[in-house]
Amino acid sequence: MKIGGISTRSVWREPDGWSVGILDQTLLPWRIARLRLRNDADAAHAIASMQTRGAPLIGAVAAYGLALALRADSSDDNLHRAYARLLAARPTAINLKWALDEISAAVRHLPPPQRAEAAYRRADAICDEDVAINTAIGQHGKRLIEAVAARKRADEPVNILTHCNAGWLATVDLGTATAPIYLAHDAGIAVHVFVDETRPRNQGASLTAFEFGQHGVPHTVIADNAGGHLMQHGRIDMVIVGSDRTTGRGDVCNKIGTYLKALAAFDNGVPFYVGLPSPTIDFLSDDGVADILIEERSGAEVSAVTGRTETGGVGTVTVVPDGTAVENPAFDVTPARLVTGLITERGVLASSREALEAAFPDHPSRRRPPEAAA
Amino acid sequence: MKIGGISTRSVWREPDGWSVGILDQTLLPWRIARLRLRNDADAAHAIASMQTRGAPLIGAVAAYGLALALRADSSDDNLHRAYARLLAARPTAINLKWALDEISAAVRHLPPPQRAEAAYRRADAICDEDVAINTAIGQHGKRLIEAVAARKRADEPVNILTHCNAGWLATVDLGTATAPIYLAHDAGIAVHVFVDETRPRNQGASLTAFEFGQHGVPHTVIADNAGGHLMQHGRIDMVIVGSDRTTGRGDVCNKIGTYLKALAAFDNGVPFYVGLPSPTIDFLSDDGVADILIEERSGAEVSAVTGRTETGGVGTVTVVPDGTAVENPAFDVTPARLVTGLITERGVLASSREALEAAFPDHPSRRRPPEAAA
Repeated sequence: MKIGGISTRSVWREPDGWSVGILDQTLLPWRIARLRLRNDADAAHAIASMQTRGAPLIGAVAAYGLALALRADSSDDNLHRAYARLLAARPTAINLKWALDEISAAVRHLPPPQRAEAAYRRADAICDEDVAINTAIGQHGKRLIEAVAARKRADEPVNILTHCNAGWLATVDLGTATAPIYLAHDAGIAVHVFVDETRPRNQGASLTAFEFGQHGVPHTVIADNAGGHLMQHGRIDMVIVGSDRTTGRGDVCNKIGTYLKALAAFDNGVPFYVGLPSPTIDFLSDDGVADILIEERSGAEVSAVTGRTETGGVGTVTVVPDGTAVENPAFDVTPARLVTGLITERGVLASSREALEAAFPDHPSRRRPPEAAA
Repeated sequence: MKIGGISTRSVWREPDGWSVGILDQTLLPWRIARLRLRNDADAAHAIASMQTRGAPLIGAVAAYGLALALRADSSDDNLHRAYARLLAARPTAINLKWALDEISAAVRHLPPPQRAEAAYRRADAICDEDVAINTAIGQHGKRLIEAVAARKRADEPVNILTHCNAGWLATVDLGTATAPIYLAHDAGIAVHVFVDETRPRNQGASLTAFEFGQHGVPHTVIADNAGGHLMQHGRIDMVIVGSDRTTGRGDVCNKIGTYLKALAAFDNGVPFYVGLPSPTIDFLSDDGVADILIEERSGAEVSAVTGRTETGGVGTVTVVPDGTAVENPAFDVTPARLVTGLITERGVLASSREALEAAFPDHPSRRRPPEAAA
């Protein structure tokens, strides 16, 4: 997608051919800063500090992180060390592990001198695959938007609610939840997106609004508290969110607050869709509330809010009294019963184990784990 | 309740006997500033700008606003002018209108020279009645908390979620949603309160956390998005919120986002209580979603966040890209079907017209309106 009219991806190889470029997303939308990653420590830091974020993009950056590690030292020991460091950077993101496993599988049986190049090749391919997956998600989801548009008056846009940023900045390009919206908009369908602010990190207010603004998609930012009210008054035609992890039965682990919007959608008969690339599916988990350990992030993300200051810089204000206890769970789980459909690269699926297994018989998380095979 | 160990109410007559003191709640918790209101314009401004806020407190301040107006000019014309100005300051708050009607009724048939004094007397009484009502709400609600405590292990506090600030700062003293919590805490019952940040104005993070901190009630601030997740994991025993307006059938109009928490409570079998003084009941409305016009406030409340700056002052940061459209509905409606009980000064009632009518046969909003009587 475009920034200032120039097409860009959210991760790329630098002109030197080996170091890796990303946008520092903690500074968007106030400052467009590019970072250069030179080793796996840089990549792990960028992931843990959320300079780069979003499940698919984290996978891509972690893949390059492993390539950077192997370029410096292609031994088995270093492969294992870097794998562990990168995996620890964000424990909830299932396709962080998927991407690291892909790189490991691509290099493990190669002689060490050939490993770095093979890792870069697989990382490049992971990026291209992500774009292809998102394009497919976009095409399937666009048909859902078209169907709503066909039922509305010609002068009324399709009103879509989204939460957090499952946009192109969260992927290599195009986004997951946003792919249907971008493709619909580009095809001339009138869409308007209500963008949840998405406390505590405000990824909706900052990143999703930035994306839509740059691409020209009409949108309105609202407080996370407002979506239910808008649905009660018929102001929202459909919800599309992303997913950090989807269980085998279709429970959706996504940014904290997603569950509340799903409840409101269900209560008001508003269709609730999830755009997700299949690497975020985890067939080994079933009941998402019971099975998924939710990352608890720093309370400072709640107590301090960053934005543009009155003098044009980037600053932070504290919004709780000094010494106040704060909890900050980063994700919640939306039970499959609240999900109208899962928009995957293989079509729009029911949120059920039957539908997911039928569409993904060959999914990596369905392969027998090595322990069980022994 | 106490600030810095000193008992205070949230509105009072100044030592001069006629001007009216309030706290500037837009500066809490960062600065404790007192404001002196000298006329109805001051009172209307304080209400509209939310220097003073909370349904019961708005009523009390508006009542004094009318007394201030009558002190300057006790004519019928001025009474009508000031009534209209004060009523327009916050259209959603039902007991703003109730308080203005009370003052009007107390003075209308008096000779103009006697009106100001009568208005002050009635305004003083409204304040005392508010404290008496909140004490009764607290006693009824405290029994609900005691019942939960009796089922828990002795070393586990009763975990209560609250939204926004229906605390003593929103009333004359003690609060509505917080009255049961304060009375339970003061009686030695172990309570712990999860305090919703309450975007966009952050009244939970700033005011409710400030109140509990000053009074010594254990509490934890969370993002508005987090409550559903905590309920899914059994971390919340009960919800208690306030109400800006309760319809005759028990629909609850309260701070935006209340509805989402009610949905989550219902989905997880967590009891959802509303602490409300009877002046906030409006028997003339029935279906809250259809009947109540929701105040749309400035988008700047969403796009700009105020807090303490790194240098210790009070500052504002902008959290959306320049030029972004923002919508800011201030309230939503929680349907009666999601409410476990209404904690009123006359006991804990079912959220039904039958229960409300039985408890309040004499409610002012059930009196035949003058037009219908003609």
